[in-house]
Amino acid sequence: MSAPLLEQLIEAFRVLPGVGRKTAQRMAYHVLERGRDGGLHLAQVLAEAVERIGHCSQCRDFSETDVCAVCAGTGRDRQQLCVVESPADRLAIETATGYRGLYYVLQGRLSPLDGIGPRELGLDALAARLAGGEVVEMIVATSATVEGEATAHYLAQLARRHGARPSRLAQGLPLGGELEYVDRGTLSHAFGTRGEMPE
Amino acid sequence: MSAPLLEQLIEAFRVLPGVGRKTAQRMAYHVLERGRDGGLHLAQVLAEAVERIGHCSQCRDFSETDVCAVCAGTGRDRQQLCVVESPADRLAIETATGYRGLYYVLQGRLSPLDGIGPRELGLDALAARLAGGEVVEMIVATSATVEGEATAHYLAQLARRHGARPSRLAQGLPLGGELEYVDRGTLSHAFGTRGEMPE
Ligand SMILES: [Zn+2]
Ligand SMILES: [Zn+2]
Repeated sequence: MSAPLLEQLIEAFRVLPGVGRKTAQRMAYHVLERGRDGGLHLAQVLAEAVERIGHCSQCRDFSETDVCAVCAGTGRDRQQLCVVESPADRLAIETATGYRGLYYVLQGRLSPLDGIGPRELGLDALAARLAGGEVVEMIVATSATVEGEATAHYLAQLARRHGARPSRLAQGLPLGGELEYVDRGTLSHAFGTRGEMPE
Repeated sequence: MSAPLLEQLIEAFRVLPGVGRKTAQRMAYHVLERGRDGGLHLAQVLAEAVERIGHCSQCRDFSETDVCAVCAGTGRDRQQLCVVESPADRLAIETATGYRGLYYVLQGRLSPLDGIGPRELGLDALAARLAGGEVVEMIVATSATVEGEATAHYLAQLARRHGARPSRLAQGLPLGGELEYVDRGTLSHAFGTRGEMPE
């Protein structure tokens, strides 16, 4: 005999990030008590999304179609290519900045110990794209972590080899950041790369 | 044209408790990146649960069958009836204590301002059950909130009217504490030292 359906539901919710036993239980009860319509809708959309959402053949971001809306868009500057680690990073840049170029989503970052190399990040396809000659500036927007920096270094070399100019997001104090709460590394870096103040 | 599937998925996740836009987005990305099998499983179990889980006709707890496993169990002391606010509270008591009596799940607490009265909590059915004469002790395990206390007072009167002895979990529950979030030890102790309710 299989476990009760309620028990199965609680366990099933644990596939979601940051959802432990307690939270899963609260979710199951909440849906059954007050959100049955929404729960059924979630079930349907989730099944459809898992089955139908793949990756854009040009930028590797999530897409229902072979080429995503951004890559297919006519109003974008095709000479700028912003390389990010994840779809969430792409969305953050698209939302926060006025950037109108294209993207390339690595779906990870170089991590030899985890078996993630250039091939897993689709860097062969990226190289082929750079070889096409359309990209003038490659904005390397990987994270400011050790692995993100190593990935950025690798990408910059790749860009230069194909005649594209690599650029990197500025690093420093976060906007509104209190000096006393910023981590040592950030503070040290920001201090060391201080610039002259404009008149 | 409807919204992109990914957008629909993010919005659909917001039916879950405590899930805002940011968390919903993280859940969608996580499932698509690393949890497609689990996501599909969740979709299936969720749809089945929403359609098939109803309420036990005897205790009002969630149940796939007309009478739940606890009410149908032969090893339970049918002279004790523990009244709780929610299925989560019932589960907490069942897990933390050695209680082997039966339960009654109000699915709420008296809250006249929200239109929740005795009828909404199924107190007519509870009264009919008490009138049956089988219940000797009614353990009132509503929360230590203002509304929980008011509900407890009402339930105690109902019990006495039908010749059952009302008892209340011992003081020791933190003031304003939701039963569901109390640690096991506190809950177990409070349950074990429950006292008879004063007139
Ligand atoms: Zn694309
Ligand atoms: Zn039952």
